[in-house]
This record gives sequence, structure tokens and C-alpha cells, in this order.
Amino acid sequence: MRMYDIILKKRNGDRLFDEEIGYFVDGYTRGDIPDYQAAALCMAICLQGMDDDEIAALTYSMARSGDMLDLSRFGNLSSDKHSTGGVGDKTSLIVGPIAAALGAKVTKMSGRGLGHTGGTVDKLEAIPGMRMTISREEFLDQCDRVGLAIIGQSGNMTPADKKLYALRDVTATVDSIPLITSSIMSKKLAAGAHNIVLDVKTGSGAFMKTYEASKQLAESMVKIGKLCGRNMAALITDMDRPLGYAVGNALEIIEAVEVLKGQRKGDLYEVCIALASEMVMLFKGIGQEEARAQAVGAIESGAAFDKMKEWIAAQGGDVRCLEDTRRFADVHPIRHVVPIVSPTDGYITAMDAAEIGTAAMILGAGRSTKEDPIDYGAGLTIAAKTGDKVEQGATLGYLYTNNEEAIPAAAERYIGALTFGREAPQKVELIQGVVR
Amino acid sequence: MRMYDIILKKRNGDRLFDEEIGYFVDGYTRGDIPDYQAAALCMAICLQGMDDDEIAALTYSMARSGDMLDLSRFGNLSSDKHSTGGVGDKTSLIVGPIAAALGAKVTKMSGRGLGHTGGTVDKLEAIPGMRMTISREEFLDQCDRVGLAIIGQSGNMTPADKKLYALRDVTATVDSIPLITSSIMSKKLAAGAHNIVLDVKTGSGAFMKTYEASKQLAESMVKIGKLCGRNMAALITDMDRPLGYAVGNALEIIEAVEVLKGQRKGDLYEVCIALASEMVMLFKGIGQEEARAQAVGAIESGAAFDKMKEWIAAQGGDVRCLEDTRRFADVHPIRHVVPIVSPTDGYITAMDAAEIGTAAMILGAGRSTKEDPIDYGAGLTIAAKTGDKVEQGATLGYLYTNNEEAIPAAAERYIGALTFGREAPQKVELIQGVVR
Repeated sequence: MRMYDIILKKRNGDRLFDEEIGYFVDGYTRGDIPDYQAAALCMAICLQGMDDDEIAALTYSMARSGDMLDLSRFGNLSSDKHSTGGVGDKTSLIVGPIAAALGAKVTKMSGRGLGHTGGTVDKLEAIPGMRMTISREEFLDQCDRVGLAIIGQSGNMTPADKKLYALRDVTATVDSIPLITSSIMSKKLAAGAHNIVLDVKTGSGAFMKTYEASKQLAESMVKIGKLCGRNMAALITDMDRPLGYAVGNALEIIEAVEVLKGQRKGDLYEVCIALASEMVMLFKGIGQEEARAQAVGAIESGAAFDKMKEWIAAQGGDVRCLEDTRRFADVHPIRHVVPIVSPTDGYITAMDAAEIGTAAMILGAGRSTKEDPIDYGAGLTIAAKTGDKVEQGATLGYLYTNNEEAIPAAAERYIGALTFGREAPQKVELIQGVVR
Repeated sequence: MRMYDIILKKRNGDRLFDEEIGYFVDGYTRGDIPDYQAAALCMAICLQGMDDDEIAALTYSMARSGDMLDLSRFGNLSSDKHSTGGVGDKTSLIVGPIAAALGAKVTKMSGRGLGHTGGTVDKLEAIPGMRMTISREEFLDQCDRVGLAIIGQSGNMTPADKKLYALRDVTATVDSIPLITSSIMSKKLAAGAHNIVLDVKTGSGAFMKTYEASKQLAESMVKIGKLCGRNMAALITDMDRPLGYAVGNALEIIEAVEVLKGQRKGDLYEVCIALASEMVMLFKGIGQEEARAQAVGAIESGAAFDKMKEWIAAQGGDVRCLEDTRRFADVHPIRHVVPIVSPTDGYITAMDAAEIGTAAMILGAGRSTKEDPIDYGAGLTIAAKTGDKVEQGATLGYLYTNNEEAIPAAAERYIGALTFGREAPQKVELIQGVVR
């Protein structure tokens, strides 16, 4: 077998055999196949596509390129969740405790983030004492005892994906359904859970800007997961505006606690209940209505918040911060809290979620390079969202920062991200689609 | 400007600006742009194409990546010829002397070859004493005095093409009209001639297997040459069977001499007269009929053969070998001359020219790697071609070699390359198209 022939075949639009895909993934991971051949193949895949069997083979080859977690001890209860990423997305912090409170074994490995805020790992590190790197044994033991563990990726998981993603990132080959599907799903397969719920974001703050593209990706991932023997469900959810009201690491932990305590409803609550319901349907094998009732019940009974505290405590986190979230102000003090005021009367007709995320990053909540430090207390809160009617001078939100110099640029970004109009905009559905 | 954005633009099927193409070529030649980004762009170009302005910009950027020859002293008389390559193609050795005898300044830089036989440089080196590497000054002086010089490529000509071609060769991105056009035409532009005649081969022994693909390439090259201010013409000529009767370095020199002496007509003669006519039309600005009459006249008067001898002598070659070609048998002695006999009665209905080329290579006429030595005397001659009726046992051709062990494999290739049938095949035109 020669890499040249594999590239040529895909260039000509032909199907690759499983062995050819495995030859590429193994050879590239080992370093036998050079970057330039892998780059040519990635571009050919972008432009010629892959069918489901090819994507499944690529996904499986990448999954087995490194360690694979064995969760067989949890039978059909092991459950995982993945979001394609958005601004203000703290759903894992809420869905995990709900599902665990209802009996799931939620085993989640998360990444650190580049961009507007950190990833889930960074958000959790805003809690004093929280350990995000624990041994494989401790991780499994915690899942067993508590039903929930969320840790940073460790060990040699999916090295093929790490190497290939870095290459795609510099060769304009990121945006491809087969390549995105195999990247995400290989990590999910290696992470081992039997039930996988995907949250595919769509809109201005999402990687996928249109509903059609998001639906295509959701369908591809669900199909590939099933071909690889997993229980799958995906929601397509709105990311035309940030999710919830908080963007920033400690700020998002606080918002998650409020939702789990039953103190806050709204868009974040609705998306979390919908995602948790999908997970409950999968691991209990029950219908949607029943699953939703149980998810709502877990919040109302306090069981979900209790589970969050049990989980955070198991990983060394200071639970007192969850019981009284005002403590975060002492742990991550913020010198400047600045209101953003409306420059006009009218309706907010659109929000550029990505721009609002960038404003939070400028304030210190995120990284623009891997080495940048994060200010866990920094970020912003949103007081008025798309569809809200505001008066000139009304408070649209607050900026939180220790970097005084960043305030004008962040405020300008925030205001610039909003579109105002005289008429109320059309309502956008929060949950735009389901793929099962 | 960022290479990433250039790749993304072409991936999305958008036009690249001249500055973007220049940025890529310059950066890649200098080594600032890595192979993997260049490979991704080449694949995107293969699959998304380029318009004429983009190809012209790519060609021009590549041409000016290294030295460019200044032939302005020759005014509109400087003339060059390029063949896309075929089996038995010794047209440069014939067209050059005809055109020079008629007043052209034929300045040709040729390559060495990989494959069935050497390139033009290797063929000429079969002549004892022939110097293929001479100084730039001597080259120009010879063109001035004799009207003809053919030398090996030297100096730092089109380094961008050398680097890019090596990359395309291992990333399955060779076969692309924009990339082939820019590779060939950048070398022609750098070589400086005002008049350029292209011989685009089509068929089983050619790089372009179909007439449509050959026509597309011819049109693209002529258009780009004109956009860059050159006088252009291209013929599309048959390579479904080898051209002429000889395949091998000394054997081809002998055949060229026979044509120039007026001793041999047939397919090679016809193609050479057609190519020479195009060149005469360009540098004299006269019509086809008149140009053809002059080209034929140059052979019949002996002027073309005299010009060949003058040229070979100028480069140190032993002219006695041309006057009496039997001398080659002493210079490059051959121990085994083996007839190939027909296994059947009937018509030869097809010849796989590439396979016949491979047979010659096996016998010692060509290289399979850059380091392989060439046996200048080795090769084969063809006694019966497509359309000829043969009887069982008739001689189809002869193998010339000093490598006795190669004979069975070469004979098998030769016979295997022929298709026999009861009916005469349809006649294939030698000159299939003209693009001016």
C-alpha cells in the first residue's frame, strides 16, 4: 500500500477501503507518513467528501491510535456529553449532576479552551482546591462511587487526532463534516461511554453558522456513533446569542449553581433539561416525557445540586463556594465592574455571540494563545438579550475585569455585537432539532 | 497576508489575486512556507481549478523565482520548442536544425529523463565529445553564430518549479491543467525565447491519455504564453504508438540524421515538418503553406543537415558519426541484437506506447532512478506499427542490449504491448489538432 495511491484515489472522488484509512492513520501517527501527504489527503477529503463507512473507519482508526478507556464495568450506564462549543456554554456542569443523580455513570474528559473563555476544565478550576488531573483508577472509582467525574484529558488518548487537528488548523482543512465527525467521535469512542449525547450549536457564536450545516454534522456524528455500537442522540441548539447570562469562568460556575438550585430558569435551564432528558432516555431506555419529568424532578428535589456538591468534593473542590457563591468574589477578586448602557431605544434584534465572547476574552476570561493566563473572576454578564426591549441608558450588562485598560475595547465590542431595531425580531427556537 | 487564508480561498473555489499567488511562490521557494501548506494548496488547485489570469500569475511568479535568460539581442528570432514527452520522440533534434537553417535563433534548454529513454540531453550525449554543459556566454554566442544550441538546464532556473514539482510528485497533484501549464510555461518563460512551439502528445504513451485533456492543456499553455507576451503555437500529436522507428539514445540520433538527410519519410518526418512549419510561421510571420514549403526545402537542399553538423561541431560533438552513422556501433557496441517475431497472422490494431518504452528502458536505454547509468547503444527498433498487416513469424522489431538477462522480459513487454486483430484498425490522425 502506498500513501500516494490513497491520496490519488480520494482526489479522484473514489471510496477508500478501511485498510487504506487505517494505513494512513497508523502511518501518520507513527510519523512514517509526512505532513505534506496528510495535508493533501485532508484537502482531498474536504473537497471530495467521505461516505459513512469511510468516516466510521477513519473515526475508529483514530480512536484506537492511543489509549481507550474500558468502562465495561458500568454496563449500559456509562454516559458522556459533548458540545461543539459556544459562548456561555456551561451545560456540562448542569447536565452531569442531573444525570448522575438519576443513576447514570457520567465519565467526562474535557479540554482546556482557546478563545472567549476557558474550556470546562478551566471553568472548574475556578473552584478552589479542584483537581482536574487524577489517576485513571481514581477517575473510575469516583465514577463508580459518585456517578460523575469530569477531568482534563490525560495520557495518550487519540494521538492521531491531536496531530491531525494541528495540521488541519494550518492548512484550512478544519471545516469538513467527515474530518470534524471523526475528530469529535474518535475522542468520544476512546473515552469509552456507551451513551453519548451531543449538543451541536448553530448560529453566530458557533463553529457551524447555519442550521443545515449543524444538522448535517449532527446526523453524521449520530450515524457514526451508532455504526460503532454506541447509543447516540444529538440536539441542535441555538448559538445566535450567548447561552445563559454569564460568560467567564467563575461567573459561569455561579450560574450553573443557580440553575441546579432551581433558582434560575430561562434558556440555559431549558437546554440543560433537554440534554439531560436525552441522556436519561439513553441510559434508562425510557420515553422523552418520562425522562424530562425525572430531569426536572432531580433539580426540584435538590438531588442534582447535592450530586454536584458530592462530585466537586470528591475532586477536592471547596463546596462552600457552591453553597454561597458570593465566596467567589473573595477567591477571585475583581477591581472593576462596569455597566454597559444602551445607546438607543428599541428592541435588540440580533447579538453576535462570537463578538461578545471576544469581549469576555479581552477582559481576561479566555486565552488567545496556549500560554496566556486566565483571570478566573473576569468576564461579563448579560442583562438584555435578543428580543428584549430596552430604553436608552438602560443597563445591557456588566463587564468584570482587573485590567482597566481592556474596558474601552471590550465595551466597544459588546455594543458593536448588538443590533437594535424598532420592531421585535422573529423568535428563534432554542432547541432547533433532534437527531436520534 | 497569510498562507492559511490563501489556501482557504482556493479551497472555497474563489479567485486568488496576483499578490497572493506571488506571496505563495516566493515564500515557498524561500522555505518560509512549509511543504504541508503548499501540498494543501496544490490539492485545492487540482480540485477547484484556476482561471487564466491566476494561471498566468502563477506561471510568471514561478518564472521569476530564479534566473531568467535575456534573449533580447535576437529580437523576434529567438525560438524554442517543447514536447510534453513521448516514446521515440526525437523531434527537437530535427526541428531545431530546420528552423535554424531558415534563420531562427533556436535556444533550447533540455532536461535529462527518467523513464523509457533519456531526455534530449541524454540522447545528444550519445554523440562522442558532445558537451551539454556550457557557459551562459558560450551558449548565447553559439546561438548567435550557428542559430542553434541545445544544452542541459544549468544555473538557478525556476527553483520554484523544481521544488513544487517534487512535492506534487508525492502528493498526487501532478495531473492538473493549471499546475502543468505553470510548470512547463514558467520554464519556457525563464528560458526567454520569443516564439514557442509546443508539441502536446496524446494517447497511450503520453502523459495526457485523451484528446480532450491534451487539447485543454494545449489551449491553456498557448493562452498563458500569449498573456505573457510570447508568440505561441501548439500541435496535438498522436502518441498512441511510438513516434518513428527507433527508441533508444544512439538509435534515435541515427533516425534523426536519416530524416534530416531526406532518407526517411513517415510519421516522424511529418510531425517534424508540422512543428518546424509552426516555428517558421511564428518567427517569419508567414502563412502555413509558405512555411511548410520552406521547411521541406531545408531538408531537400541539405541545409538542415548541414546546420545539424554545424551545431553538433560547435558543441564539440564528433560530426563523423553523423556523416556515417555506422560509427555509433563502434562507439556504443551492442552484443545482442534480437528480433521479435509475430506470434500470429493479422493486423496490429493497437500498440501500448508506454509499454514499448518500458521495454527499451529494461534493455538499458533509460533510467528508473536518477542514479541509474544509461547504455547509449541500447534500445529497440520497430518494424511494424499499428495498421500494418503481419504474418506469423514476421519480424516486428529488434531489441538492442548488452544485458542478456533483460531480453526475455523486454520481449514479453514488447509482444504484450501489441494487440492483433483480423480487421484493419481505424486510421488515427498524426496531427490531431492545432492551437494558435
